Amino acid sequence: MCHHCVTESVKSRMLSRRDFFRTSAAAGAAAAAVSMPKPLLAQDAGRVEDMTHELHEGFPTYFGEQQLFIDQKFNYADHKFNINEWRLNEHTGTHVDAPLHFSEDGLSVAEIPVGDLVCPLAIIDIREKASADPDAQVTPGDIEAWISANGEIPDGACVAMLSGWGAHVSSDMFRNVGDDGKTMHFPGFHIEATEMLMEETGTKGIAVDTLSLDHGPSQDFAVHYSWLPSGRWGLECIANLESLPASGATLVVGAPKVRGGSGGPARVFALA
Amino acid sequence: MCHHCVTESVKSRMLSRRDFFRTSAAAGAAAAAVSMPKPLLAQDAGRVEDMTHELHEGFPTYFGEQQLFIDQKFNYADHKFNINEWRLNEHTGTHVDAPLHFSEDGLSVAEIPVGDLVCPLAIIDIREKASADPDAQVTPGDIEAWISANGEIPDGACVAMLSGWGAHVSSDMFRNVGDDGKTMHFPGFHIEATEMLMEETGTKGIAVDTLSLDHGPSQDFAVHYSWLPSGRWGLECIANLESLPASGATLVVGAPKVRGGSGGPARVFALA
Repeated sequence: MCHHCVTESVKSRMLSRRDFFRTSAAAGAAAAAVSMPKPLLAQDAGRVEDMTHELHEGFPTYFGEQQLFIDQKFNYADHKFNINEWRLNEHTGTHVDAPLHFSEDGLSVAEIPVGDLVCPLAIIDIREKASADPDAQVTPGDIEAWISANGEIPDGACVAMLSGWGAHVSSDMFRNVGDDGKTMHFPGFHIEATEMLMEETGTKGIAVDTLSLDHGPSQDFAVHYSWLPSGRWGLECIANLESLPASGATLVVGAPKVRGGSGGPARVFALA
Repeated sequence: MCHHCVTESVKSRMLSRRDFFRTSAAAGAAAAAVSMPKPLLAQDAGRVEDMTHELHEGFPTYFGEQQLFIDQKFNYADHKFNINEWRLNEHTGTHVDAPLHFSEDGLSVAEIPVGDLVCPLAIIDIREKASADPDAQVTPGDIEAWISANGEIPDGACVAMLSGWGAHVSSDMFRNVGDDGKTMHFPGFHIEATEMLMEETGTKGIAVDTLSLDHGPSQDFAVHYSWLPSGRWGLECIANLESLPASGATLVVGAPKVRGGSGGPARVFALA
């Protein structure tokens, strides 16, 4: 989808969703008032997992265009040291969506409270249905099933979708453009699932192992427009979720601390 | 100091230090063979400290020139979402020096073992002597004093210099250029201290709250040229060390995972 198409789609969505925004803003305010004492780190933590894809100039992007350009400014042969300059879009590679990404005056990536970036990780495994349907979504039923198996979602948690899409990061399957030549097909969160997380839990972040919090065919960015303006954050293109238990790991989101950033490439670890 | 001056200074240094490099490489190989079981996380860890300065276009740089440029590509008023593009030098803000920064074929920032980036933090406080002499250095005596007070330096540790320079980050005092109009004056590690760490401990990283691992007046980058090629990493412009105990915290270095990078802006946390 070209930049213009995205913009137009988003504008029309905005006009049609005013009532929804009022509702979600109220829900967001209520959730923000929840007190969140949380067990930061498992007492037996001793393993570090890297949840980050290596970023390179060919890394797949939502818009389909190259978003990282590396320019070597000093090289060892000539200068006896190496320094590169990068030009990159904030939403490239394993990266954070800050509230400011889809709001007028939400928190920038530098302003997300540091305590929110070290948090309990809840992993919802939808690999089975995603392998059958690339447009699969995390639904309220998936969240209920996770709670039945693992107990309540911890306050301040990041709830992550494990769709298995990380295995496709080096192929066209990661964007998975359909026969119309533009619509992408990959899994994401359903708006009803993220509304449930906002209204019934103290979840602070959601993560996906795909290019977008909303699933590929989304034209309205419903999850982006309700989740981010509420002051919560997202994480796209997370790697390696399959190496962790559904419950019990601590996620550390090394979000770049760039003033005014709408997000940015992050180094993400899990302590398990 | 201009780019050309740095390059020339470094070239001459390289010619004069060949024998030293052979020695330090051998020491590095020996240290790398040390087995490093380490207590990853304090059992009572519950506090997250942000060790990262906010990065902005005016952030001070070693070369004195602007190294971050932010270009807003999409804005909420027109597009209903925000996205910026950044152009930045890898060695800007609170950032990592990878082995590749000062070596021909050392590890890139993406290749530093993930287990090395979550490590015990040892803080050496030289604020008193740095306030009397801006060219102060961490010496072997400072390391010995730390060991006397706190016990052995943990295997795999990051040893950090707390000079108090973080308080100057928004003023000219951070670079502190002298009367000659070019020589900078700020604290750093003495080569004898980093040699001691390489030879006698299993230290993996060093951190400074200034613009360079070597102190400001250095013309030969002695610490850079012995520490980094040995496979170890550095962290420059670390913030907030004064909030932590000398021993006992766990450092989490969110180094960007950019292929071939000689380093990069990092999000750094401490769990205490």
